[in-house]
Amino acid sequence: MRKIGVSEIEDIALGAALLGAGGGGDPYVGKLVAIGAVKECGPVTLLDPEEIPDDALVVPIAMMGAPTILAEKAIGGTEYQTLYDTVSAFYGKPIFAFMPIEAGGVNSMLPIAAAARLGLPLVDCDGMGRAFPELQMVTFTIGGGSATPMALVDEKGNSSIFRTITNKWTEELARAVTMACGGSVSVSLYAMEGKFMKEYGVKGIVTRSQTLGSAIRRVKEAVDCSPEEQFLRITEGVRLFKGKICDVLREVRGGFNFGKVLLEGIAGDKGRQAYVEFQNENLTAVADGRILATTPDLICLVDTETFQPVPTDALKYGKRVLVVGLPCFPLWRTPEGLALVGPRYFGIDTDYIPLEERCKGGADHV
Amino acid sequence: MRKIGVSEIEDIALGAALLGAGGGGDPYVGKLVAIGAVKECGPVTLLDPEEIPDDALVVPIAMMGAPTILAEKAIGGTEYQTLYDTVSAFYGKPIFAFMPIEAGGVNSMLPIAAAARLGLPLVDCDGMGRAFPELQMVTFTIGGGSATPMALVDEKGNSSIFRTITNKWTEELARAVTMACGGSVSVSLYAMEGKFMKEYGVKGIVTRSQTLGSAIRRVKEAVDCSPEEQFLRITEGVRLFKGKICDVLREVRGGFNFGKVLLEGIAGDKGRQAYVEFQNENLTAVADGRILATTPDLICLVDTETFQPVPTDALKYGKRVLVVGLPCFPLWRTPEGLALVGPRYFGIDTDYIPLEERCKGGADHV
Repeated sequence: MRKIGVSEIEDIALGAALLGAGGGGDPYVGKLVAIGAVKECGPVTLLDPEEIPDDALVVPIAMMGAPTILAEKAIGGTEYQTLYDTVSAFYGKPIFAFMPIEAGGVNSMLPIAAAARLGLPLVDCDGMGRAFPELQMVTFTIGGGSATPMALVDEKGNSSIFRTITNKWTEELARAVTMACGGSVSVSLYAMEGKFMKEYGVKGIVTRSQTLGSAIRRVKEAVDCSPEEQFLRITEGVRLFKGKICDVLREVRGGFNFGKVLLEGIAGDKGRQAYVEFQNENLTAVADGRILATTPDLICLVDTETFQPVPTDALKYGKRVLVVGLPCFPLWRTPEGLALVGPRYFGIDTDYIPLEERCKGGADHV
Repeated sequence: MRKIGVSEIEDIALGAALLGAGGGGDPYVGKLVAIGAVKECGPVTLLDPEEIPDDALVVPIAMMGAPTILAEKAIGGTEYQTLYDTVSAFYGKPIFAFMPIEAGGVNSMLPIAAAARLGLPLVDCDGMGRAFPELQMVTFTIGGGSATPMALVDEKGNSSIFRTITNKWTEELARAVTMACGGSVSVSLYAMEGKFMKEYGVKGIVTRSQTLGSAIRRVKEAVDCSPEEQFLRITEGVRLFKGKICDVLREVRGGFNFGKVLLEGIAGDKGRQAYVEFQNENLTAVADGRILATTPDLICLVDTETFQPVPTDALKYGKRVLVVGLPCFPLWRTPEGLALVGPRYFGIDTDYIPLEERCKGGADHV
């Protein structure tokens, strides 16, 4: 148990934005919401998963929709109370704690805001260890958990509750309502008991985000290596490519941000070409026709000078980025995990090969 | 109080298909569902609205979506129990009776099936006195009634509950989910107390449908006039046009059947041209550039030989039809009613003029 205040939020937002793998939304917007809530209602208690009783009701809180829309469409003030009331009434017992469902600039932050506003603790655990674009893409689906009863509220006061036969159907119905509500809403889903959360959740994700954020902030303080080497060391990342953005193709479709960013190599990658494709999150990184990494491993773009994560909605012509691969949570590499979030699910016709194997023998460039 | 069995269902389906004003779906499909339920579970008790206690919970049951899709996509067996459970749990009391929300080939029938299967009575009352395409288009909206909590279930077992700030928002959210579920679902909405139902409902609509159906079936038995004159007499309808269908334009869009049917005059209308535009239901009838009738008055097409109603999804090239106008329920002619269902709501740039005034001085043709 420890407290999360403004400085912790700054670090968590930064680290989670990296783990968002291009998605998860703008950390600036998320941070504003969380810091506003903590300043108004006081710091939030972060609980270790092991501190949660087996039968306690734990409820993930998130936003659903296109991150680019969230940045323009505010979050109201009463959504979290409505979500609490709806879920608590359904189960006939109080909610013990909130938790994030994914790591990312926005969805790592909103549960902190919700916890602060309702005076509830937050659990140091999520269901992805990164961000993914669709709601069935959580470790809890592998464990047989149900996304429903899922509650969805918009900033105008409209709300829906879904109960579905599969988590993929939850995605279909909730996505349709998200679109009808303007493309971004607040949700609670995968409400679960403490026991299940401890068995299938990605534990320690809030702390990992904070540690990463803090380390990224101090990356230039390293004395025995370059900032880039220090960044790779602290993130345990694999250097995939360094380049200048020479084109960005975008499409908002079905509530998602789809697109592709093209890179011209710089420094050791001079003369090479690479691209990264995304659906909210980065899906593949390809250089000179060779796949360097695919989902579910994390493909992260960071600024070459500041090492700040660059989410897909902030990609701009001329920006210089370092593309880094991070191994995903082990459960994603099982056949059940790959069926949910492997390359073929996203229409990418290649087998999943772990990042470390693809890059075995060292990077093929400096 | 009286019983509804198979022969009553036959008449109600026929009469309600006429009141459906082109919409409300294929009476054959609706009848199959209702007759199947009554044969299996026994006849349904029909209650007069005055027999309902003021504080009793009365729940309309309907299908939502495009009637053309319903005809291909079956209704499962457990939807009504799910709807009952959801609504009853929300209000914390049992449902006293079901009722239809509109008259039409399908939505006059499904509440009978639901009542039979759950052993509940049906109330002789609806919220339209005809059919309309969108769910906020009920007399209960004029009375300030809320469509929500609205429950929606599909034949696969997925369900949603909506609570919205306006009935128009209910339409937006429920329509989005209806589309995601394949274009046709079962719903309960405008759950209300007996007192409110008696104040704003269209009373006696089931009986009116049955009387009309029975009379249409015997229209050729008239001895003092032609079948057509007899048909106009029993329906109290205004003869608008008689013609042969020479073209049908259709479009399924946003879960609705949009379209236009073009008619070449026959008999007394020989040499004249007319068209009827529809959105599920017929919206306007125009002959030689002159508007004959508009929503919310009922524009009904019937076969010139059998006087069977021809719903918009059964319009076919070459079919000969009589176009008849029927005055709508008086509440629809108030400013509040016309704001909901007047011609301008549907994008038709004309003021509403009651059918009787438009045709004053008699029909301008024989």
